Amino acid sequence: MSSPEGSIAAANLAFYEALEARDLARMEKLWLHEDSASCIHPGWHRIDGWPEIRRSWQNIFASSRSWTVSCEQVRISLEGDVAWVTCVEAISPFGAEGLDATARMQATNVFRRQNGEWRMIHHHASPSPGGEGSQDEEPIN
Amino acid sequence: MSSPEGSIAAANLAFYEALEARDLARMEKLWLHEDSASCIHPGWHRIDGWPEIRRSWQNIFASSRSWTVSCEQVRISLEGDVAWVTCVEAISPFGAEGLDATARMQATNVFRRQNGEWRMIHHHASPSPGGEGSQDEEPIN
Repeated sequence: MSSPEGSIAAANLAFYEALEARDLARMEKLWLHEDSASCIHPGWHRIDGWPEIRRSWQNIFASSRSWTVSCEQVRISLEGDVAWVTCVEAISPFGAEGLDATARMQATNVFRRQNGEWRMIHHHASPSPGGEGSQDEEPIN
Repeated sequence: MSSPEGSIAAANLAFYEALEARDLARMEKLWLHEDSASCIHPGWHRIDGWPEIRRSWQNIFASSRSWTVSCEQVRISLEGDVAWVTCVEAISPFGAEGLDATARMQATNVFRRQNGEWRMIHHHASPSPGGEGSQDEEPIN
């Protein structure tokens, strides 16, 4: 895991582990605490700046039930000190059975390397085919 | 428009002009033609690699009706030769009247500078509040 790609994959995995654990402290550790940070939760408007992003995670963790989260189809792109990772998030309510209970989200995660560590600077997740809110018709933009 | 931010804003605008014009040649010109390119249309799975991305735009332009497209709340982040732009896309069927006819999408657009030109390498668009498919409940990641 000493290659840049390995470190980026580990940073991306840490995000989904923090999400599954609903652990605000771990979420705080992996984000860049900057005004330029931004976050788009599924179906929501963009949230700008770390303080508001932190508050959104706090609300999500306070109100949501336990879930299991996994991350599939990970694709990593790297250029200098920026990496963007795309993947499919599979989120299942804890204890639920069957495929229908799993929501799948397409995600774009942007990381920036700061002091040798890859930290999240942008997260965008949205419903995917086979998941909640998916569409079967032809895509429009 | 000679600052990097100005050039990135222009590249982002060129994307929405090509989308509004449903002009495949302009779309071809502004994307990087690489296997690492990726595209997530609203509600769709990720499309990987320029040939498949090109085909998706060809299908969209062939099947969709005329529309007007504008781009709001543009936010540009830049690091070395990579920029990521977030914005809200407002897409209205041509001739339609009233706010309800406008679909709003949250977008994340990643550009890479190559030979001095900013070209699109990743596009992710998804339904936004007030637009098609929006949600009013608490966001879940």
